[in-house]
Amino acid sequence: PSDITDSDFANYFCTYGFLYHQKQMLEDTKRMRSYRDSIFLNKKFFQDKVVLDVGTGSGILAIWCAQAGARKVYAVEATGMAANARVLANANNVGHIVEVIHSTVEALELPEKVDCIISEWMGYFLLRESMLDAVIVARDKFLKPGGSLWPSHARMYVAPASTAMTHNKVSARGHALDDWEQFKQSTFSEYGVDLSALSEYYEREQTEYYMQTVQWAEVGPWQLLGKAAVILDIDLATVTLPEITEVHSKFSCQLWPSQMGEEEEEIEVSAMCGWFDVTFKGAPGEPATQEVLLCTAPEEGVCTHWGQSLFLVHPALYGAAEEHVSGTIDVTRQKTNFRLLDVCMNLQVTSGKDDATAASKPAQFFYKFE
Amino acid sequence: PSDITDSDFANYFCTYGFLYHQKQMLEDTKRMRSYRDSIFLNKKFFQDKVVLDVGTGSGILAIWCAQAGARKVYAVEATGMAANARVLANANNVGHIVEVIHSTVEALELPEKVDCIISEWMGYFLLRESMLDAVIVARDKFLKPGGSLWPSHARMYVAPASTAMTHNKVSARGHALDDWEQFKQSTFSEYGVDLSALSEYYEREQTEYYMQTVQWAEVGPWQLLGKAAVILDIDLATVTLPEITEVHSKFSCQLWPSQMGEEEEEIEVSAMCGWFDVTFKGAPGEPATQEVLLCTAPEEGVCTHWGQSLFLVHPALYGAAEEHVSGTIDVTRQKTNFRLLDVCMNLQVTSGKDDATAASKPAQFFYKFE
Ligand SMILES: Nc1ncnc2c1ncn2[C@@H]1O[C@H](CSCC[C@H](N)C(=O)O)[C@@H](O)[C@H]1O
Ligand SMILES: Nc1ncnc2c1ncn2[C@@H]1O[C@H](CSCC[C@H](N)C(=O)O)[C@@H](O)[C@H]1O
Repeated sequence: PSDITDSDFANYFCTYGFLYHQKQMLEDTKRMRSYRDSIFLNKKFFQDKVVLDVGTGSGILAIWCAQAGARKVYAVEATGMAANARVLANANNVGHIVEVIHSTVEALELPEKVDCIISEWMGYFLLRESMLDAVIVARDKFLKPGGSLWPSHARMYVAPASTAMTHNKVSARGHALDDWEQFKQSTFSEYGVDLSALSEYYEREQTEYYMQTVQWAEVGPWQLLGKAAVILDIDLATVTLPEITEVHSKFSCQLWPSQMGEEEEEIEVSAMCGWFDVTFKGAPGEPATQEVLLCTAPEEGVCTHWGQSLFLVHPALYGAAEEHVSGTIDVTRQKTNFRLLDVCMNLQVTSGKDDATAASKPAQFFYKFE
Repeated sequence: PSDITDSDFANYFCTYGFLYHQKQMLEDTKRMRSYRDSIFLNKKFFQDKVVLDVGTGSGILAIWCAQAGARKVYAVEATGMAANARVLANANNVGHIVEVIHSTVEALELPEKVDCIISEWMGYFLLRESMLDAVIVARDKFLKPGGSLWPSHARMYVAPASTAMTHNKVSARGHALDDWEQFKQSTFSEYGVDLSALSEYYEREQTEYYMQTVQWAEVGPWQLLGKAAVILDIDLATVTLPEITEVHSKFSCQLWPSQMGEEEEEIEVSAMCGWFDVTFKGAPGEPATQEVLLCTAPEEGVCTHWGQSLFLVHPALYGAAEEHVSGTIDVTRQKTNFRLLDVCMNLQVTSGKDDATAASKPAQFFYKFE
């Protein structure tokens, strides 16, 4: 579709055009069961209703809605995957109910308003990909008053964590910088060009790459060092674009007693861990028959394809049990690609929730999603 | 610069903006020595001359030209790397000679014509990246009649080869397809959606990925099974855009006797291997003092960052020593990204150069660069 910019297609939509990638999402059991349950345990919301599936991909959610008794499902998909969704709907005998439309939702026109909007729009740390924008557009343009959104609510979390990754990346960066020194020397001796003037730039580039890139990780619950803080809590029925374009939040996470049982021990906070959950609660005026939660927090043995987002903290912060890791977080969109996020955190250890008790100034950390 | 399309920047220029990537090119010893020698062993072409460096990157070639005595070097670079090139030229005391211009060469205006154009524009299999276009633009707009181009000539080659990669990729694709079967079954039993209708599409996607993607490889000379054929031979002084936008060539490569010495043995051709060379021969009317060759053919112990391009042949072709692997090759630009190439080959084994002797019809193979 021509309303997608070239670079957005190159950067973002491109991967969704591969069935291989859609398959990876279809293999995410926790994700799949949450959506399935939210539909089939809340059938009354879908029976004889008109549904819009924003970003249908392989068509899975649209087909489920049809199977749950929808009268009509508009399934919109920006990539060529639309053709596969159409094939799949037909092969599963719901081709007369599911109408697949190869378009962006922004360019979509529908002959009627819809009773429900369903969408799997969540990216890493909830907001990466900025696809919630498309759901808001769809809601404002197509959802009947009092209609339902699936999911209906979403929250972002951060918590102090422990990870070996910080040490590993510090040492990988160290190797990269040592290698630069050698490279610089041999370039000078072999080719007579002195690269010294670029050393600082190279160091900055490597620091960005190793230390300031948000890391995808499968975090174990035992790696969490304290209470999680909610940094964003939204109701999809009412949320507006400005409320998600930038997130600015204060948080304070109390450190738990060490798992070793030694109370006096210093706790080393080597990362902040981020994740999200979404809830399927039905419509504003009509609660779900069965509320469903899709939570991507660290959990033993279960990991979604979102994993968790690790924000490496180096040098580490040290605190004692019952102290707080307090701070602020700013989540903004990258200037050169609105689907990627910049994150800035101010972090310090305080004795209570009130950061006035802080011993020193907070340390500032910058991160980029890639 | 605003004349680069968004997607071209996202897809192509983006990587060149990292010093890390420029460093990888600066570490390619064979590449570096060829350019250095071509400049310093042919100083008379540069002394007191005006030079244009198309795509200066870190600035290395421009600095060398200045060190070789150029009066003025215009060093044009599309990415933010331009700022580093400027710093480097200053730090190496040639800031008064090297003028770095942050622009595409297509948008460039210069106050004068130039005596030489130097550029390192070669991509995988010579033409990937389509950067030669920019050199042709620069030549037609800025080069004085009789001026010199560095390099001045370029050739593309193919040769029959043996590689374990073909077998590995065939088996990886097999695993992927087995996995799909399992995935299909569990999706049906767990979620009630039958994916069978997409099996064929998935198989095609996986075949493209595993078998039709051109593979970067470090090929050893012992993997070559026959004589190489030149499929393109260009003189940069005269080549025109249409001559490189599409390459259509016939070739015939005689198979060598088996290295095992057994003459009767069947030779298994499991790939075609592609590479290129460029030569620095000076100006049309003024041959180089010392001709320099930068060749990326398989060579023992030496590999450039270009490696070689492997086009997997499956099922393999079989021939005997002195028979020929004959065929045609078409190299075209991808519709969705002109910097990437599609390659189509027709291959057969013939007893002589003349493919009329072929036992059967040629087999057709399609490939994509990524
Ligand atoms: N603005 C937009 N308009 C239409 N489709 C969009 C869109 N933004 C993202 N998409 C599509 O939304 C999909 C999100 S992935 C989810 C796919 C499917 N609903 C499932 O749950 O498995 C991708 O296929 C992507 O191409
Ligand atoms: N049309 C164009 N205009 C300006 N720069 C271009 C260009 N096409 C490619 N480039 C730049 O050309 C460089 C090619 S890589 C070679 C870099 C350097 N001359 C060296 O030899 O080490 C890249 O930095 C790329 O950004």
